[in-house]
Amino acid sequence: MLDAAARPYEHDAPSETFAAPQPLTDVPAVRERSAAEEARTLASAGSHAALATLGEEGEPWASMVAYAMLPDGSPVLCVSTLAAHGRNLRRDRRASLMIAQGEVSGDPLANGRVTLAGVTELVEGAAEEEARAAYVAKIPAANVYAGFGDFSILVLRVDTVRWVGGYGRMDSADADSFRAAEPDPLGPNAADLVNGLFSDDAAALEEIGAQLGGHPDLTAVRCTGVDRYGLWLDVETPRGRGPARVGFAEPVASADGLSTAIAELSARVRAA
Amino acid sequence: MLDAAARPYEHDAPSETFAAPQPLTDVPAVRERSAAEEARTLASAGSHAALATLGEEGEPWASMVAYAMLPDGSPVLCVSTLAAHGRNLRRDRRASLMIAQGEVSGDPLANGRVTLAGVTELVEGAAEEEARAAYVAKIPAANVYAGFGDFSILVLRVDTVRWVGGYGRMDSADADSFRAAEPDPLGPNAADLVNGLFSDDAAALEEIGAQLGGHPDLTAVRCTGVDRYGLWLDVETPRGRGPARVGFAEPVASADGLSTAIAELSARVRAA
Repeated sequence: MLDAAARPYEHDAPSETFAAPQPLTDVPAVRERSAAEEARTLASAGSHAALATLGEEGEPWASMVAYAMLPDGSPVLCVSTLAAHGRNLRRDRRASLMIAQGEVSGDPLANGRVTLAGVTELVEGAAEEEARAAYVAKIPAANVYAGFGDFSILVLRVDTVRWVGGYGRMDSADADSFRAAEPDPLGPNAADLVNGLFSDDAAALEEIGAQLGGHPDLTAVRCTGVDRYGLWLDVETPRGRGPARVGFAEPVASADGLSTAIAELSARVRAA
Repeated sequence: MLDAAARPYEHDAPSETFAAPQPLTDVPAVRERSAAEEARTLASAGSHAALATLGEEGEPWASMVAYAMLPDGSPVLCVSTLAAHGRNLRRDRRASLMIAQGEVSGDPLANGRVTLAGVTELVEGAAEEEARAAYVAKIPAANVYAGFGDFSILVLRVDTVRWVGGYGRMDSADADSFRAAEPDPLGPNAADLVNGLFSDDAAALEEIGAQLGGHPDLTAVRCTGVDRYGLWLDVETPRGRGPARVGFAEPVASADGLSTAIAELSARVRAA
């Protein structure tokens, strides 16, 4: 089942700009991370984000914050009223967080990010304790400032989720799907691990792209993404260059399961 | 002349939290980068930022953008009306950019960032050509999308500037100072260069901190920042740990001038 997130972004652009080679063989459809899963994965992996709040005249204000995630996908903030964003949130509790995929090289716009928008809540009692514990566990430096009198623990109740996976990959998720989705155990940055596994044996990844990805004429291949359901490959063929998808036999359940899933792909190639 | 930016952030916190050792010898005051210079330096060094815009109901919306800078400090954006921020800016032209110091390790909140806020302008004619040229020169990937019909070149006319240098270092700049300020030729990330210069001779940097920074009892030192006017050192002494400032003989005029300025500090130590 192909996800809506994979549909190309309909730019007002020359149609050949995004032409990509299509599989030449019958390739099974491979499940993709939903926008909700992508958003939860990025949010869980990160610790710092851009925060948008409203100034005195309702103008937008961008700043940097640290955050932690609650199990239901609500971000926790710890903000000071000495900072503009802290004063802004006391006046108008609406906020938006933009979390970008960390540890990536190259063009940041080619990588993932998610915007979470909603209303921040000043939590109290047990909810405050849970949120504070999550925050301090994620942000070690908070041991210094989280207890200062000018800092408050806020929880962002997310009502709008917009995920962008890079050029041409983007989708929204509704709030319920976002809350229910699980972060991918492989995180957002596992492609380098896969390229590392094949660094001494490029031909083996080429065989996977050729036989399992449907591009038997490929001349080069690189892994650009990994999720629990499979690999994203960038393939070069005489017909052009573009993405190819290869599914794992089973969804990967933990970070430790990646090498087993990759070994199964190689075994499938050898058996073909 | 000590800049207001160096004053401690007046947290509602135990007073001893930010206690730092004071110089034991008579150390000359060293000029610091103004908030306007810090802001221009960060903005010139970066290429990607968080953008805050306003949604349909005036709610804040955070997203990621690439940007370039015009010589007067106005950021140039290139946004699509297919993206939420592009639609937002067509409805309400107010925007805010948060630019963070790139290429740093450790805690992002301990490093620099700047918020630039104002009103975006859809430029035309020669102004559009200048802005587009600046954008394409800074953002190579824009060669693909900047010409698409759904993308517009916008210039952010900055009216509010807020710089944060890390914990306890922050200040605002007025719009005129921001426009007039020069980006520091050393950029925001030169501290690693200085630590590298002393990696084989830690004692030499200790002597600089001891003799020129006013902490003759220091037990360890590390460079945490460099600007055209001098070094920021983190010194450990039996009296506590904190920042120390050492000024260059002359402001450094270009990136190539850093090693000469450092050599002069070492020569001054030897002559003492």
